[in-house]
Amino acid sequence: MKHELQALVFDAYGTLFDVHSVTRLADSLFAGRGAALSQAWRTKQLEYTWLRSLMGRYDDFSAVTAGALDWALESLGLAARPQDRASLLRAYRTLGTFPEVRGALARLGERHPLAILSNGHPDMLDAVVDHNELRVFFGERVLSVHEAGVYKPDPRVYAIAAAQLGLPAQSIGFVSSNGWDAAGAKSFGFTAFWVNRGKAPVERLGSPPDAVVDDLAGLAQLLA
Amino acid sequence: MKHELQALVFDAYGTLFDVHSVTRLADSLFAGRGAALSQAWRTKQLEYTWLRSLMGRYDDFSAVTAGALDWALESLGLAARPQDRASLLRAYRTLGTFPEVRGALARLGERHPLAILSNGHPDMLDAVVDHNELRVFFGERVLSVHEAGVYKPDPRVYAIAAAQLGLPAQSIGFVSSNGWDAAGAKSFGFTAFWVNRGKAPVERLGSPPDAVVDDLAGLAQLLA
Repeated sequence: MKHELQALVFDAYGTLFDVHSVTRLADSLFAGRGAALSQAWRTKQLEYTWLRSLMGRYDDFSAVTAGALDWALESLGLAARPQDRASLLRAYRTLGTFPEVRGALARLGERHPLAILSNGHPDMLDAVVDHNELRVFFGERVLSVHEAGVYKPDPRVYAIAAAQLGLPAQSIGFVSSNGWDAAGAKSFGFTAFWVNRGKAPVERLGSPPDAVVDDLAGLAQLLA
Repeated sequence: MKHELQALVFDAYGTLFDVHSVTRLADSLFAGRGAALSQAWRTKQLEYTWLRSLMGRYDDFSAVTAGALDWALESLGLAARPQDRASLLRAYRTLGTFPEVRGALARLGERHPLAILSNGHPDMLDAVVDHNELRVFFGERVLSVHEAGVYKPDPRVYAIAAAQLGLPAQSIGFVSSNGWDAAGAKSFGFTAFWVNRGKAPVERLGSPPDAVVDDLAGLAQLLA
C-alpha cells in the first residue's frame, strides 16, 4: 500500500491541532468546568457541521463554532461575559499542536507532499497554521471545505483535495484522528489512516480505515 | 398560527417512544451500566444516521441501530452474549411511550389528522406502533425515511410527509422532541413544535421552532 502513496492529506482539528487545548483558558474562566465546556463545545460543533450540511444550510466554521459555544455555555449553566466568549473563540485561532506533530510532519514530508483538508474557514486555518509555524510543511496546500459549501464527510469535500492535488483518490493517503472522517475519506476512495488518539472503537460506518496508528509518530514509522 | 394547521406529523423515537425505556433491560444485563449504555447507544445511532446520509451510504435503521449498539458496547468495555445483543435490538420494537402520549394523541386527533414521520425502518415502526396500540390514531399514515434512502434532517425526508398528506408545508405542524429535527422541519417549511423534554437549550441552527412545549400534553393544551 504505502509505496503507491503520492501525497498525504491531513485533517486539522483533532489531528494536528488539539481542540482541547482551550481547556486551560476555559478553566480559568469557569473554575473546574473547563473540560466539560470544551467537550460539550466540540461535540456540538461537529453535530452542527453534520446537521447544517444535511439541511442544506451551510454556515461557515466560525459561525458554527460560535453557535456551538453558545449552546454549550447555556447547557452547562455558564454565563460568559462578551469578552470571555470572544477570547474562547479567538483561542480557536491559536490552538496548540499535539506534541509529536512537528517531528512527524518533518519525517513524512521528506517522502510525500503534505496537505491539509479541514472544515475550518480559510481564515481560521491560515491563522492556526501560521501560529504553529507549520506553513513550511504545507505551503499553499491548506484546503478548506468552504468552497464546497458543505462539511465532511460529504464526498464533495474530499473531492476538493483530489482535484487540487491532481491525483487519483487511492494514491492519496488521508489522515484523521476522527474515526468518522477516516470512514468518509475511505468511502470516497482515499487510502485512510485513522489516528486513534482516544483508543476508541472503530466506527461502524461500512468503510474501515486501511490502517490504524496511535499518533502521527506511529504513522511516520508505518510509512518509513 | 394554530387555526391554519391542517395536520400534525410526529417524530417517533424520543417524541412518542422513550428510547431510554431499554435502560431497565440494559441494566439487568450489565448491572449499573444500563443508563450509560442507553445513552451511548442513542448518541451513536443518531451520529450514524447523519454521517451515513452525508456519505451517501444509507443503510436501514435496523442496521444503523445494531452498529451503534456494537460501538456503544465496545466503548464501555461490555461483552454482550449474542442473545443479549439480540434482546437489546428486539427491545427497540417494543419501546414504551412517554406517559402522556396516549391521552394527548386522543385530544389532538379530534382536530387534526395525525401522522408519524420517522427514521425507523417501516417494519420497526409498524412493530412499535402496534405494540403500543397507537394504530387507531395514525392509520396508514406511519411514514418512514426508508423510501428516500436518507435520514433526517435532509429536506427530502420532510418532503415525504408533505407529499403523502397533499398539503402545503406551512399548514403541517411537525412535532419533535429532538431540537435538531424541529430545526430541520422548520427549515423545510413546516410549522415546528419542539417538545423540549430535556430542558435543553435551543439548537443554534438558524431555524428556531415556532413554539416550545414541555410534553405532548402541553402541545394539546396549546392547540386546544
